[in-house]
Amino acid sequence: MKSDIEIAREAKKRPIAEIAAKLGMGPRDFLPYGHDKAKITHEFIAGLSGRKQGRLILVTAINPTPAGEGKTTTTVGLGDALNHIGRRATICIREASLGPNFGMKGGAAGGGMAQIVPMEEMNLHFTGDFHAITSAHNLLSAMIDNHIHWGNALRIDPRRVTWRRVLDMNDRALRETTIGLGGPANGHPRESGFDITVASEVMAILCLASDLQDLQERLGRIVIGQTFDKVPVTARDIGADGSMTVLLRDALQPNLVQTLENNPALVHGGPFANIAHGCNSVMATRTALALSDYVVTEAGFGADLGAEKFLDIKCRLSGLSPDAVVLVATVRALKMNGGVARADLAVENVPALREGCANLGRHIENLRGYGLPVVVAINHFTSDTDAEVAAVKEYCAEHGVKAVLCRHWAEGSAGAAELARTVAALAEADSAEFQTLYPDDMTLWQKIETVCKRIYRADHVEAAPAIHEKLAEWQSAGHGHLPVCMAKTQYSFSADPNLRGAPTGFTIPLREVRLSAGAGFVVAICGEVMTMPGLPREPAALRIGLDAKGRIEGLF
Amino acid sequence: MKSDIEIAREAKKRPIAEIAAKLGMGPRDFLPYGHDKAKITHEFIAGLSGRKQGRLILVTAINPTPAGEGKTTTTVGLGDALNHIGRRATICIREASLGPNFGMKGGAAGGGMAQIVPMEEMNLHFTGDFHAITSAHNLLSAMIDNHIHWGNALRIDPRRVTWRRVLDMNDRALRETTIGLGGPANGHPRESGFDITVASEVMAILCLASDLQDLQERLGRIVIGQTFDKVPVTARDIGADGSMTVLLRDALQPNLVQTLENNPALVHGGPFANIAHGCNSVMATRTALALSDYVVTEAGFGADLGAEKFLDIKCRLSGLSPDAVVLVATVRALKMNGGVARADLAVENVPALREGCANLGRHIENLRGYGLPVVVAINHFTSDTDAEVAAVKEYCAEHGVKAVLCRHWAEGSAGAAELARTVAALAEADSAEFQTLYPDDMTLWQKIETVCKRIYRADHVEAAPAIHEKLAEWQSAGHGHLPVCMAKTQYSFSADPNLRGAPTGFTIPLREVRLSAGAGFVVAICGEVMTMPGLPREPAALRIGLDAKGRIEGLF
Repeated sequence: MKSDIEIAREAKKRPIAEIAAKLGMGPRDFLPYGHDKAKITHEFIAGLSGRKQGRLILVTAINPTPAGEGKTTTTVGLGDALNHIGRRATICIREASLGPNFGMKGGAAGGGMAQIVPMEEMNLHFTGDFHAITSAHNLLSAMIDNHIHWGNALRIDPRRVTWRRVLDMNDRALRETTIGLGGPANGHPRESGFDITVASEVMAILCLASDLQDLQERLGRIVIGQTFDKVPVTARDIGADGSMTVLLRDALQPNLVQTLENNPALVHGGPFANIAHGCNSVMATRTALALSDYVVTEAGFGADLGAEKFLDIKCRLSGLSPDAVVLVATVRALKMNGGVARADLAVENVPALREGCANLGRHIENLRGYGLPVVVAINHFTSDTDAEVAAVKEYCAEHGVKAVLCRHWAEGSAGAAELARTVAALAEADSAEFQTLYPDDMTLWQKIETVCKRIYRADHVEAAPAIHEKLAEWQSAGHGHLPVCMAKTQYSFSADPNLRGAPTGFTIPLREVRLSAGAGFVVAICGEVMTMPGLPREPAALRIGLDAKGRIEGLF
Repeated sequence: MKSDIEIAREAKKRPIAEIAAKLGMGPRDFLPYGHDKAKITHEFIAGLSGRKQGRLILVTAINPTPAGEGKTTTTVGLGDALNHIGRRATICIREASLGPNFGMKGGAAGGGMAQIVPMEEMNLHFTGDFHAITSAHNLLSAMIDNHIHWGNALRIDPRRVTWRRVLDMNDRALRETTIGLGGPANGHPRESGFDITVASEVMAILCLASDLQDLQERLGRIVIGQTFDKVPVTARDIGADGSMTVLLRDALQPNLVQTLENNPALVHGGPFANIAHGCNSVMATRTALALSDYVVTEAGFGADLGAEKFLDIKCRLSGLSPDAVVLVATVRALKMNGGVARADLAVENVPALREGCANLGRHIENLRGYGLPVVVAINHFTSDTDAEVAAVKEYCAEHGVKAVLCRHWAEGSAGAAELARTVAALAEADSAEFQTLYPDDMTLWQKIETVCKRIYRADHVEAAPAIHEKLAEWQSAGHGHLPVCMAKTQYSFSADPNLRGAPTGFTIPLREVRLSAGAGFVVAICGEVMTMPGLPREPAALRIGLDAKGRIEGLF
């Protein structure tokens, strides 16, 4: 088998105008970026309102393990396969962050025969969206310190400015800094720091905004800190919302690319899956729904985090409603959930596999709680035995869910045709009766408890009095209607990454809460959250370069 | 008269493919960015070697004053006018920096009827070049601190790391910082800071590189600091040159846009005109020369700084050789050079004008010293009187130089047709015998002295012993062949911005020297140099936004 990058380089890409034409776009409806990337214009999107909407399929997964589940690969394979069986399907996924690609091996968009191209550009600057977000975020930062420097009319307390700066780079040295040193000409010294761009609230806002006007309103609502009287100060108070919108105008337009099989894919936005909601943009999903029979999309991490936030944040805030959910599992990852060590994964072990299926089972139950029909996709690995695959299918049958073996990684759309037919049958039965997990008018604390108890199955949620005070303060300040955005380890239903399977009898410790008033949620942090990664001892950057033919090597 | 932005919005732009076709490019020879911007591919450029070269015209100016000279406007007007009289001419200018546009009013590309479009995109993200430079610069920064964090095998002295970080933003609070705070996981605390992206050595390198291989070699030569044994450490030692090249691969491709009259313009690169050489990229100028009869370009500030660096740095390092120089002057700026206050500039004052012509005269003399034919362009303002224009022409005639009155701002190419005919006659007479001011093998100190005495007409150059030691150190380390890059006030031939006209009897104080081994020059700083601007009390960002039609307002 060839490597992902070799396959991607040999892709028979069609001109992007041809892909756009498949979606009914004329040459003025998109802005080309090279010959294989484009942005769909605001004008074209504005003309889509009232169009019949396609069906929305969410791809999610069991709790991730180092063994890999192949969620994105399955998303791409299913999208291709739906086209293969005669449905016009568009794939919607997130953009990759540039910075981390120079640390670890770059994140490809899918793998094997189920990939989105151009892979190199998508792992580098792509169409510049993340750079625009960096600029907009840092303009607000500069304007805050500038306001303080020139007399501080708003009486901003420099010690209580929570808005930091961002770079799309893994740079641990910037996590904690002092700025404004060097005397009066350089402003007021204070402590601050940098996060990675995908952790910016501006990223989350871009992904939840429904249009330019909504974007500006959300940007204006960002709370940057407090005055000396502890009154919240917003980006609108600073006067930054207009300029930030201008910087993001082009970035808000969804990016069009294609799969190896020349089907359309919208790759747009990439918020963190912990302190943000981890989904591609509402603009992209809505645009794709207006242009396709089916839209296949995914959400970050396992279903306890990713699907929950997709459903309780993105769908709630945008009015989107999925028609079916695909839950991806692999024999290898299920065996790890059943206690098998990574080194032993190639050995058949049906008992451990059945044990690990408890993880799968709980996700199925959770997703059904949202009123959604579920199908399990067993993403095939060459080491899987027939007995193991049969055991997974049997487990699913016992739980009233169909499980389909998929070989899209090796075979492309043909390998996921059965999955596509199953998904289409489920979705076209119109059996989905989507409801969010909790209503808007529950208190913030109750919302957190509801997710922890009903999705994670915790017995208790622990929080210091200061956290309760903050939640009560936001509640009375008019933020009580917001959904909660949970930040927790992705490796377990619990807050302990080593508790695999379907643990019970645990407590979730709520360590911190943050208000993202612009994005429109309250972040509940249960554990450590790293918002600025570092580079490893031997970063990938040491091996990245151009080869003799001018091609990029080492990035993948 | 309409405003610049009104004129730009009404521009009858042709599709960029049509502009590319004028230069002989097929649809695969460029990468479109939207419908009105493109990058010329590396592959196409590689195929141009050996082509007949067009003629190169440098547009420079007298010492700038707040009254304005209109150098870029004249560059654009002359380019259009050369096309108007039947020469295939391409304009080459620099890209605008994004950050400062949110501080003061944005920098348009020309003005009136002599503009390059699309103006809005060119003042915002354009094709992402500056963002790529920011990323490449900051990747090196992150890799330096990462190297120190993981054992510091190179024994880099953290106190002697001179490589800072950059943002394309006016943000005074980042000028001086401490980084690496917060404990061992965040690295080693040290002092550092941020410059604006255009001040990055990476920007200067991008503008001087002849191709991707040369780019990587120059990046590798960047000196980032010293070891504990005071041995210089380079970007190649850090292992960052390959990754930086990958990040800059697309950015090195020149950007193609058009004038209001649909003539081609390459807008590429934008190094500072003080700590760097202030010219557009060598890649763009060379590409344009291979595709046109004429290339019209400009250099930052007045001729004492801009033309000197264009000729002694850019032309020396790239082998370019201009055929003629256009020296732009205005009646208003000459009167200011003659001592008239800004408030009185609308009043006719021929004696002061003649006095101020001394500034013009010295620039003419200097440019002739390079073996270049010179023509003076009098950029017409409505307040100019016939007597004043006649006085400038008379002064120039006395000095054996033709002066041409130009009305391209009001009339477009027709208003600069006489200038175009004069320039064509001068260039086509093949009278240029270009020579640089000083040879490579002069010592660094002698080179600095030569510029100060022969171009600025200083009596002495003063420098502390430490500066002489540094120059001697670089001399013996093999950098003695490099040209010098002077950083001095642009308002005067001297180091005192208030000494207008053609001062004599002054000393140039050399305060600091910096080695830019990657770019390939030694910076000699004669005065204050600000490498990170701040925002003003009422930044333009407060007024920038989208209007009801979704158009950008307040940026211009």
